[in-house]
Amino acid sequence: MNVEISFTQEPIAIPPIDLPSLEIGACVEFHGIVRETEEGTALASLQYEAYERMAESELRRAISELAVAFPCEAVLFIHRLGWVAVGEPSMYLRVLSSHRKEAFMFALTLLDRLKMDVPIWKVAYRES
Amino acid sequence: MNVEISFTQEPIAIPPIDLPSLEIGACVEFHGIVRETEEGTALASLQYEAYERMAESELRRAISELAVAFPCEAVLFIHRLGWVAVGEPSMYLRVLSSHRKEAFMFALTLLDRLKMDVPIWKVAYRES
Repeated sequence: MNVEISFTQEPIAIPPIDLPSLEIGACVEFHGIVRETEEGTALASLQYEAYERMAESELRRAISELAVAFPCEAVLFIHRLGWVAVGEPSMYLRVLSSHRKEAFMFALTLLDRLKMDVPIWKVAYRES
Repeated sequence: MNVEISFTQEPIAIPPIDLPSLEIGACVEFHGIVRETEEGTALASLQYEAYERMAESELRRAISELAVAFPCEAVLFIHRLGWVAVGEPSMYLRVLSSHRKEAFMFALTLLDRLKMDVPIWKVAYRES
């Protein structure tokens, strides 16, 4: 399985979809976008921080474990760090698999693991 | 909810993501791609056919029903018809929602409904 993980201080640039084999039947993409309100109050922007090395290592572990239940051929994960304005994406995930259910379940479960286990966090600054 | 459905004989052209509000936190995209093998034998290409008017009507019904369980703000669905070569996308779905679980569950369930209830079908031509 081809796994690419990166962190960037710049706006996320999404590379074109490149199929590693002719057995890919499903490509699932997810963009996490900064919303205007968080827990009921308005945000101006969010700041994301991470322990990058540990975050990458935890992500690779989660990806290996999930691939047993939901076989996939390629995973691309990009997370923005630093300030991200409302309406802009803070993260991007792409999963390529033979079948759609595996691709969807892989992506959904990986995002749950991301929230629980991976040292990436956000600091919210409210409008004042 | 903004719903756009289209069928095309041309390669699918994906429009840029346009957020209808600053409450969108999740964008899920799915590309269904023609695989080289189907039920164990090699394909050269697939031909897709549809009763377009009925397919659109069934899709709109499924979308309205699913939006009750999984609230979403925008759905874009594009299906290619006619010949589609191996490795090319035959369909594209985009779902925008405030939250990722709703967006994923909406997309996954809509694709199940698509297979069951919507008059779009494929004719496989084997390599000989």
